[in-house]
Amino acid sequence: MSLSTPYLLFLGDAPDALAAKVAQGIRDWRPDLCVGQYRMPECVPDLGLPDMDIDAAVSAGARTLVIGVANRGGKLSDSWKSIFHKALASGLDIASGLHELLSDDPELVAAAASCGRQLIDVRVPRVAYPIANGEPRTGLRCLTVGTDCSVGKMYTSLAMDRCMREREQSATFRATGQTGILITGDGVPLDAVVADFMAGSIEYLTPPSDDPAHWDLIEGQGSLFHASFSGVTLALIHGSAPDALVLCHEPTREHMRGLPGYSLPTLKQLREQAETLGRIVNPACTAVGIALNTKALDEKAARDLCAQTEQDMQLPTIDPFRDGADRLVDALSAIRPRTS
Amino acid sequence: MSLSTPYLLFLGDAPDALAAKVAQGIRDWRPDLCVGQYRMPECVPDLGLPDMDIDAAVSAGARTLVIGVANRGGKLSDSWKSIFHKALASGLDIASGLHELLSDDPELVAAAASCGRQLIDVRVPRVAYPIANGEPRTGLRCLTVGTDCSVGKMYTSLAMDRCMREREQSATFRATGQTGILITGDGVPLDAVVADFMAGSIEYLTPPSDDPAHWDLIEGQGSLFHASFSGVTLALIHGSAPDALVLCHEPTREHMRGLPGYSLPTLKQLREQAETLGRIVNPACTAVGIALNTKALDEKAARDLCAQTEQDMQLPTIDPFRDGADRLVDALSAIRPRTS
Repeated sequence: MSLSTPYLLFLGDAPDALAAKVAQGIRDWRPDLCVGQYRMPECVPDLGLPDMDIDAAVSAGARTLVIGVANRGGKLSDSWKSIFHKALASGLDIASGLHELLSDDPELVAAAASCGRQLIDVRVPRVAYPIANGEPRTGLRCLTVGTDCSVGKMYTSLAMDRCMREREQSATFRATGQTGILITGDGVPLDAVVADFMAGSIEYLTPPSDDPAHWDLIEGQGSLFHASFSGVTLALIHGSAPDALVLCHEPTREHMRGLPGYSLPTLKQLREQAETLGRIVNPACTAVGIALNTKALDEKAARDLCAQTEQDMQLPTIDPFRDGADRLVDALSAIRPRTS
Repeated sequence: MSLSTPYLLFLGDAPDALAAKVAQGIRDWRPDLCVGQYRMPECVPDLGLPDMDIDAAVSAGARTLVIGVANRGGKLSDSWKSIFHKALASGLDIASGLHELLSDDPELVAAAASCGRQLIDVRVPRVAYPIANGEPRTGLRCLTVGTDCSVGKMYTSLAMDRCMREREQSATFRATGQTGILITGDGVPLDAVVADFMAGSIEYLTPPSDDPAHWDLIEGQGSLFHASFSGVTLALIHGSAPDALVLCHEPTREHMRGLPGYSLPTLKQLREQAETLGRIVNPACTAVGIALNTKALDEKAARDLCAQTEQDMQLPTIDPFRDGADRLVDALSAIRPRTS
C-alpha cells in the first residue's frame, strides 16, 4: 500500500475540529504532502491550508484526495459523493480510513475503473503478507509500547521521526494503523491482518536497511495488558524485533480503555513484560525512554510527574507534545547496530 | 460453524497413513460420529470403518462428507470431484480443511446451491466475531500452551476431554484449528481470524457455562516463544482467560519449528510467561500439569524424563499417548470455580 502524493485534504462538512482530526494529523506531521484543503460550505474547521476545489488542486499537482473527516459510524456521507466522482474524473485517486469502504460503493468502483484511478481503503490490507521468519535484519528499530491503547504511541513515534529528520539522521516512521497510514502514505493496517500473517506483515513493513545505523520508528498498537488486543501487540513486538522500546502512558487513565474491570499496569510491569518478550527475537531489546501523555495535567503537575517518573524508572521521561522528542532520540544514540 | 453429523470420511486416493491423518484423527477421537469410510481403488490406508459408497453412506444416515485426506499443497484433486458432485446430489454437505477452498470451485458452488447443500471450508471463519470484552465468565477453562508449535497441544486437550467423558465429568473440547474443527465438528479457525477479533473469537468459542464446575478444554495454538505466531497464542490466552494451563513440550526438538535460529524455551520459562500473561485476565491462572510428547524416546527414557521433569517442575508430568490424561484431569479437580 502506497498513496500517490501530494494530497488534497478533504474536510467535507466537518462540524468541529475533532471530526477532522485525521486531516489535522496529516497537516501537522506531513505539511509537505498537502497542497490544499477541500471544505464544503458547512465545514467549520480550517487547517490553514489553501482552500481548493478539485480543478485547482489538480492544477497544483495533487494526486490523491484524502478523506480527512470522520462522521459518527465512519460512514461515507451521500453529500460527499458528487465531489468524489468529480475527483476521479479529474485524475485523482481517493484514500479513506473510514469503516464504510469506498470499494463497497458500486458507483464509485465503476467510476474509478472507467477513469483508471484507485480507491484506496487503508483499513483493508492490499498485500499478501508472508509468515514471519524471525531472521535478524540489518538496521535499527524502535517500537512504542503502551500501558494501554490510545496513550500516545503514534504521536510519540511521529515526534521522534520529526526530531530525527530535523537532525538529518537516517530514520523512517513506519505506520501500523489507519491514521498513521494516511499521514505517511504507506504502512500496514495491522488490526485488519489475518492472525497467521501479523508478525510477517511487520517484517515486511520494516525490511533490512542498507544503512546499519538507520532507525525504523514503528508505531505501536494496543497493549500487552489489553485483553482485547494483546495478541496484536505481541505480534508487533516479534515482527519488529525492536532494539529499543519507548514506554507510553497516560497517567490519569482510570481503567484500560473499554475494559472497566481492568486497571492499568505500572510502567515497571510494562517494561519487564515488553523487554522479556522482545528479547525472544532480539536479545538486545531494551527500554530507552518514557513518553507520558500529560494533557490532563497542568504544566507544573506534568513536569513534576515526568521528573518523578524519570527518577523512579531511571529512564529519560518526557511528554512529546510539551517537550518534543529530543531526549528520546538522544537515548537512541546509545544503541549500537547489532554486529552479528 | 457447526458440521452436520454423522460423517462419511473421504480417504480418496491417499497413498499412505500420513496423507489420511485428519481422517485418522476423527476416527480416533470421535468414532461415534463416523458411519464409514470412502476409499478410492488406489487408496492404501484403512481406518477399519465400513467401506461405503455415497449411496450406502446416505442410507446409513451420513450427513457430511469430510475430506480426511491431504495431498502435497492441500489441493482439491480433480479425480475427487465427480465423487463430490455425487455426494452433493445425494444430500450430503462437504467439509474440508484443505488450503484450496471448496468455495473457490465454481462448479462445486453451483452444484451445492442447486442441491441446497453446504460446502464448509473450515479454514475460513463463518462468524462475525466480536471484539473481546474481557469480562469474567462462569465455568472453568483449561488451555494447553506449548514451548513450540506442534508439540501435542491438540492431542493433550483431546485426551483430557476423553478422560473426563469416561469419568462422566462435565467438559467440552474447544477446537481452535482446522483438524480440531473437523474432529469435533465445531470451533474457531483462529489462525484465519482478523487480528482485532482474535481474542473475541475465543470468548465466543468458550461462553459462560450454566454449570460453574464445567470445564472447557481449549486446544492451544502456536507458542508465546514462536516469532511467527506468538500473537495468536497471546490472543488465545487472553480470550480463554484460563483457570488452568497444561504445559506441552517435545523434548528432542532441536529448534523452534520453522525457525532454525531459535532454541526452545525451558518449561520453567514457559510456565512463568504463560502464568504471568494469563493472570492479566484471570488472577487464578495456574499451570496444573505437563504433557511431554516422547514419541522419539524409548519407553524407559520416556518414563525417566517424565519422572525427572515432574521432580524439577513439581507438577504432574505425563505423555498422554503413553499414559492417558488421568493425572492431568486429577490435577484439574484441585481447581475451584471462581466465586466472584
